[in-house]
Amino acid sequence: MEFVFSDKLAALKPSAIREIFKSLADPTIISFAAGNPAAESFPVAALAALSADIFEKNAATALQYGMTEGYPPLREAIAKRQREVFGIGSEGDSTLIVSGGQQGIELACKALCNEGDVVLCENPSFIGALNAFRSCGARTVGVDMTADGIDPDALEQAIKENPRAKLIYLIPTFQNPTGITTSEAKRRKILEIAARYSLPILEDNPYGELRFAGEEIPTLKSLDTDGLVLYCSSFSKILSAGMRVGFVIGPEALVAKMVVAKQSEDVHTNLFFQMLCHRFVTECDLDAHIRKIRALYRRKCDLMLGELEKNLPAAVTFTRPEGGLFIWCTLPEGADMNAFVKRAIEKKVAVVPGTTFNCDTTAPSNSFRLNYSTPTDEQIIEGCRRLGEAAREFLK
Amino acid sequence: MEFVFSDKLAALKPSAIREIFKSLADPTIISFAAGNPAAESFPVAALAALSADIFEKNAATALQYGMTEGYPPLREAIAKRQREVFGIGSEGDSTLIVSGGQQGIELACKALCNEGDVVLCENPSFIGALNAFRSCGARTVGVDMTADGIDPDALEQAIKENPRAKLIYLIPTFQNPTGITTSEAKRRKILEIAARYSLPILEDNPYGELRFAGEEIPTLKSLDTDGLVLYCSSFSKILSAGMRVGFVIGPEALVAKMVVAKQSEDVHTNLFFQMLCHRFVTECDLDAHIRKIRALYRRKCDLMLGELEKNLPAAVTFTRPEGGLFIWCTLPEGADMNAFVKRAIEKKVAVVPGTTFNCDTTAPSNSFRLNYSTPTDEQIIEGCRRLGEAAREFLK
Repeated sequence: MEFVFSDKLAALKPSAIREIFKSLADPTIISFAAGNPAAESFPVAALAALSADIFEKNAATALQYGMTEGYPPLREAIAKRQREVFGIGSEGDSTLIVSGGQQGIELACKALCNEGDVVLCENPSFIGALNAFRSCGARTVGVDMTADGIDPDALEQAIKENPRAKLIYLIPTFQNPTGITTSEAKRRKILEIAARYSLPILEDNPYGELRFAGEEIPTLKSLDTDGLVLYCSSFSKILSAGMRVGFVIGPEALVAKMVVAKQSEDVHTNLFFQMLCHRFVTECDLDAHIRKIRALYRRKCDLMLGELEKNLPAAVTFTRPEGGLFIWCTLPEGADMNAFVKRAIEKKVAVVPGTTFNCDTTAPSNSFRLNYSTPTDEQIIEGCRRLGEAAREFLK
Repeated sequence: MEFVFSDKLAALKPSAIREIFKSLADPTIISFAAGNPAAESFPVAALAALSADIFEKNAATALQYGMTEGYPPLREAIAKRQREVFGIGSEGDSTLIVSGGQQGIELACKALCNEGDVVLCENPSFIGALNAFRSCGARTVGVDMTADGIDPDALEQAIKENPRAKLIYLIPTFQNPTGITTSEAKRRKILEIAARYSLPILEDNPYGELRFAGEEIPTLKSLDTDGLVLYCSSFSKILSAGMRVGFVIGPEALVAKMVVAKQSEDVHTNLFFQMLCHRFVTECDLDAHIRKIRALYRRKCDLMLGELEKNLPAAVTFTRPEGGLFIWCTLPEGADMNAFVKRAIEKKVAVVPGTTFNCDTTAPSNSFRLNYSTPTDEQIIEGCRRLGEAAREFLK
């Protein structure tokens, strides 16, 4: 039988990153294409011990159906920590456990957007979020990134040009893919504009705990006095990505709608791992664990930045992130990114072409994304050497 | 800030069952309202041992990001077992791991339906599926259940009356909420009609392994020669509901679209538990484990049927399921179900009103659903006594 697909899914392609992954079956290729946390960042011994204890004492609860909203003690522990670390959570807020930050993003769009509505995004932005919006039938409209976040005037212009805009999606801290952090001044202006146009903001902050340089900047959520920010984050980058446990904190009315939508998507998030997260957060030293991850990523990022400086021709520029997982490299204007990525693969090094992250899927890009959390030190050194070779040949 | 919700979510209410759960905080109420598997059905010791082994040997894989399609060895093990037990899986089929059968249902609708399209369902039907369709913006249109499944002629009539019908949703075996199993003759006619109108069928079979009486009837999927059946099931009723691991098996082109949609929903299902399921299915005696669950539910179902006979007035009829988790009771025509459920709660016994399961949310119902897997034997006996009292008073 021939299937006729929904309009929203008919056009949606699998993420290019996942396609690149498939070409990585070749073990001689060094990959800077992933967005995986380092395996060393998983506190395996502690999780194993707590897990054994849950099987011994709470198996009947952990293996049974749970509440859609999430395991209540975990919701409380998250609300407490986010309040302490990021100044997040006011009277009218509630917390929902989601199956990874990805689900929080998708549920927000599902709750707010009809087919044909518009989500305003940083351009470039996280492909997983862009595809989530598209899979809900929403259109993604981009506001270009600059060195310290999007230009608030350009955001306002985009709002005026898109009367069907229903949501603003931002990753203000260590953005994916650019590594850029939005300045506090811009954050305040963006909030003021969103309030003026009554537009909710989805603040995605998966990397917020991973600052290894520079000064903390307040989250949008902590600056929000109008109850318009929905905050989304997860344990993927600090405990385990594979367990798929994330959370959203936001205005009660909005979160309540997301609960109804989540009930229809997966009833609730894996309860055993919710209990495991709760035990880790309340019984282990999460701050000490995060300090270790920060030190690891600081070292890896510094190593990659040094090797890029050493190997890349001067015509290639790159961002210097203060945290997170990514560096954003830019070739001279007009460079054919597909040709460059192909050249890099020939040199046995994989990067993600910037086109992947464009809000407009047909727009070109002369940038590419590098990840430093996944490769080993040796791979970073050798991979940057290969990348330099590819760039020099490409720019000749 | 006042939020404006999407049309599809604005009207969607939380499942009435979950609302009833909240009223169950009173520990003196006996609940026949749940749909939970018995806690005794979780093979805790085996899962604990395998889990410890995964932490010891495969933690770096189990805690890291995985493939959206699912853990390849689990996909293979499922395809093999479903082929052997249910005759499922042809050349052109592929298997996708989902976060509980619920996600398989939602993804199928998302892939096939635009807002305003129609899903044809048995009436009454599983509230989780109905709400999933509604959350995608689809309309649910019901075809009334009879003692051996929906009338194929009525299905054809509904197709003719609904040119925007895009999907047929059926639970042919031990249906939720009625406990009814569709006869083989009707299954063949339904397939023939679906093929004639080029309409895909979503066959939901969460209880298929739980037959404790009567003869096996071939699944729709095993009878499908046109590649139009998408088959959905899960481990929720045989290993653990709380872990949220299910699967779909269906035509490659359709499953590929669902993979793209799933990537945007939760990237992939909890990988640790996928590995745990794989270990259990391949290393433990799943058949012996399922035989134990069948014996348990046969005993519980028989006990409840006997107590219903003993306690309910003759004017109340009920189904005699050959498997699954539910019995469907019907009061005389015109009975006010809300009043009856309220009376039952006064007598400290909770049931789910049939209105919950109606495709048309405004339609009345004179039936209610009972669950026998969750309550203890003592609760079944005492709860049926209370239910009888409520019914006698109500019908007086």
